[in-house]
Amino acid sequence: MEFDELWESLLPVGRDPGTGGYRRYAWTEAEAGCRAWFARSASALGLGTDYDGNGNLWAWWGRPGPGAIATGSHLDSVPDGGAFDGPLGVVSAFAAIGELRRQGFRPTRPVAVAAFTEEEGARFGVACLGSRLLTGAVDPDAARGLTDADGVSLAEAMREAERDPAQLGPDEELLASLDAYVELHIEQGRALAGLDTAVGIAEGIWPHGRWRLEFTGRPDHAGTTRLADRHDPMLPYAATVLAAREAAAGHGALATVSKVVAEPGGANGISSAVRAWLDARAPDQATLDLVVDEVSAAAQAAAREHGVGLEARRESVTPLVAFDPGLRDRLSAVLGAGTPVLPTGAGHDAGVLAARLPTAMLFVRNPTGVSHSPAEYAEPADCQAGVAALAAVLADLAG
Amino acid sequence: MEFDELWESLLPVGRDPGTGGYRRYAWTEAEAGCRAWFARSASALGLGTDYDGNGNLWAWWGRPGPGAIATGSHLDSVPDGGAFDGPLGVVSAFAAIGELRRQGFRPTRPVAVAAFTEEEGARFGVACLGSRLLTGAVDPDAARGLTDADGVSLAEAMREAERDPAQLGPDEELLASLDAYVELHIEQGRALAGLDTAVGIAEGIWPHGRWRLEFTGRPDHAGTTRLADRHDPMLPYAATVLAAREAAAGHGALATVSKVVAEPGGANGISSAVRAWLDARAPDQATLDLVVDEVSAAAQAAAREHGVGLEARRESVTPLVAFDPGLRDRLSAVLGAGTPVLPTGAGHDAGVLAARLPTAMLFVRNPTGVSHSPAEYAEPADCQAGVAALAAVLADLAG
Repeated sequence: MEFDELWESLLPVGRDPGTGGYRRYAWTEAEAGCRAWFARSASALGLGTDYDGNGNLWAWWGRPGPGAIATGSHLDSVPDGGAFDGPLGVVSAFAAIGELRRQGFRPTRPVAVAAFTEEEGARFGVACLGSRLLTGAVDPDAARGLTDADGVSLAEAMREAERDPAQLGPDEELLASLDAYVELHIEQGRALAGLDTAVGIAEGIWPHGRWRLEFTGRPDHAGTTRLADRHDPMLPYAATVLAAREAAAGHGALATVSKVVAEPGGANGISSAVRAWLDARAPDQATLDLVVDEVSAAAQAAAREHGVGLEARRESVTPLVAFDPGLRDRLSAVLGAGTPVLPTGAGHDAGVLAARLPTAMLFVRNPTGVSHSPAEYAEPADCQAGVAALAAVLADLAG
Repeated sequence: MEFDELWESLLPVGRDPGTGGYRRYAWTEAEAGCRAWFARSASALGLGTDYDGNGNLWAWWGRPGPGAIATGSHLDSVPDGGAFDGPLGVVSAFAAIGELRRQGFRPTRPVAVAAFTEEEGARFGVACLGSRLLTGAVDPDAARGLTDADGVSLAEAMREAERDPAQLGPDEELLASLDAYVELHIEQGRALAGLDTAVGIAEGIWPHGRWRLEFTGRPDHAGTTRLADRHDPMLPYAATVLAAREAAAGHGALATVSKVVAEPGGANGISSAVRAWLDARAPDQATLDLVVDEVSAAAQAAAREHGVGLEARRESVTPLVAFDPGLRDRLSAVLGAGTPVLPTGAGHDAGVLAARLPTAMLFVRNPTGVSHSPAEYAEPADCQAGVAALAAVLADLAG
């Protein structure tokens, strides 16, 4: 099957007719449609589909076993996400194998196409859950107990989908069989657009993390409490949002506050508490620490100024991922020395697997840079260029 | 019955055991408990209890009819509100009648104790709903269609409580029978505390209103979108929160932002939209307009700076209420020339009724000024002083 046919056949699955965005959450009906599409697409290429114990899908070209080259990405989405983030890597993997078949290429090693589950963490809150379970980076007991917004646990959701949650956990045999993993992904920024190039190679993933800030004030009547008597947590929250932007701009980093909960939430009372989450990313750990220190200091100062309490807590930090330099150089040799090498601030399954085997990533140009939105887009010609690049890389690695 | 006994008997009704706050929402079981308490308390004084068509309660001392003097307040609460806001006025009204009875006072006019329904607007979103319906300030059809957070309409909630929603609407006969309404209320600030006085007289209610601000940006990936490429609506929102405080401080007014909704609400994406509500109040309409104009201008400038759209809409404005000067002077004469006369920024049923008959308010000292919170408090001696003041006022007006 060619790229277009594969792409079109996946497009309608899990798309919300109202927003035009995707809601392909792990172990839901929409995601089951994606899994069925995966098995059908593999089958059309003569490949069988396996589940590993963590619910990740594996289609094998050749007999599964040592020395394998893996490629793929994920099929799940953020709420109202776009069509490309994840699926482009899986569709391109199948299309590249189809292309290699048409060229008469015969791999000397097994080639696997993977689709990792719950990469976005949109249902159970842990990003890259499938690859983290596979590598042992997440405890299986903790994972089984994760719950979605309706209180349904991962274990219950898997049983509902007729998968056995007792099988969750690291799979050393599978990991040991993989010699390399190459993930193709739509770029989530405009670096390639600026360079006028369709395909790039990932350098590494910026260290990034999430911090929870809770400002605690005193609930009071908005119509009668003098400004001088107030302990309004919304004011230091607002100062912190602006300080985060300033700190990021000052250090070539990224900082975002998009999740905020004000309590009790009435319009005519002063808030008792404002909880917010800071997302921060930087080229290196020292810069990330600097940015977070500056934001924390500004938040503390603003909280003190308004007589408001502040509790700041690190919720997660993912250290710098440097993709395997040898593998990266090999991709550069295959694709040409002029191929751009780009850093990214986004997490990926390739970043998780990098702790256990050589991994690399290819990025496909995104003209607007828009991501995690129905407006996410790549030109058909650029998608074809991505397939050709991935086919060339697989031919080199598995030839 | 004396104040303490009345007060203690109402205290447990509708109190949340977890927060210690009250959840006495209109036409709920908790509020039905308050209504039953009202009828029992009236009955203990030998007074009968009537419902008007809008669900407000009226207990009459003497035969209902022309020339009546009314007092009272409301029994419903904000979410996790305090024990005093509303109930203090109703309990004090019954206690004052008990006190006048013990003194052997015989009114020459009917005296009514009123408890207005849905004063806080906590269930159906319209403050002073009971008094607004009574005076015709709210359309009965629109009121019947108001829904709570679960989608239950006022009409359904009333039928559930065995009241007929077809009876909603202005009651000219009842209004015409009232010569004056005097509402006693806990102060929702610290003016009396600063003056070292237990009881004050209301001058008027500041004009106040609510404005809805919707900032519309572009959803993007927080980990990959360059700062320069962002259209993040959280940034102009934050600037607007700080500008509102500054504008209020600059003009001796009040401005508060406590209700905010960020969409789609994930921590690792840039928001597509941030909706917020501005509550603003000022001593006069010109100052209120000035404050809101300054906040709007700051919001517009910040939105432009970040490439974000802004739609600002006035949701409600209540003009200045000046209580009847003649009635206010009469209260001053009864309570002594030294009795402080205070403005307030809070809305009250007395403010709504002021459009149709002479009204006045008495405030009882609140040592911390805390309001709309379980920590709301008045000293027992001050409550007794409030009862004595109200009894003296009723004796003067109905004697």
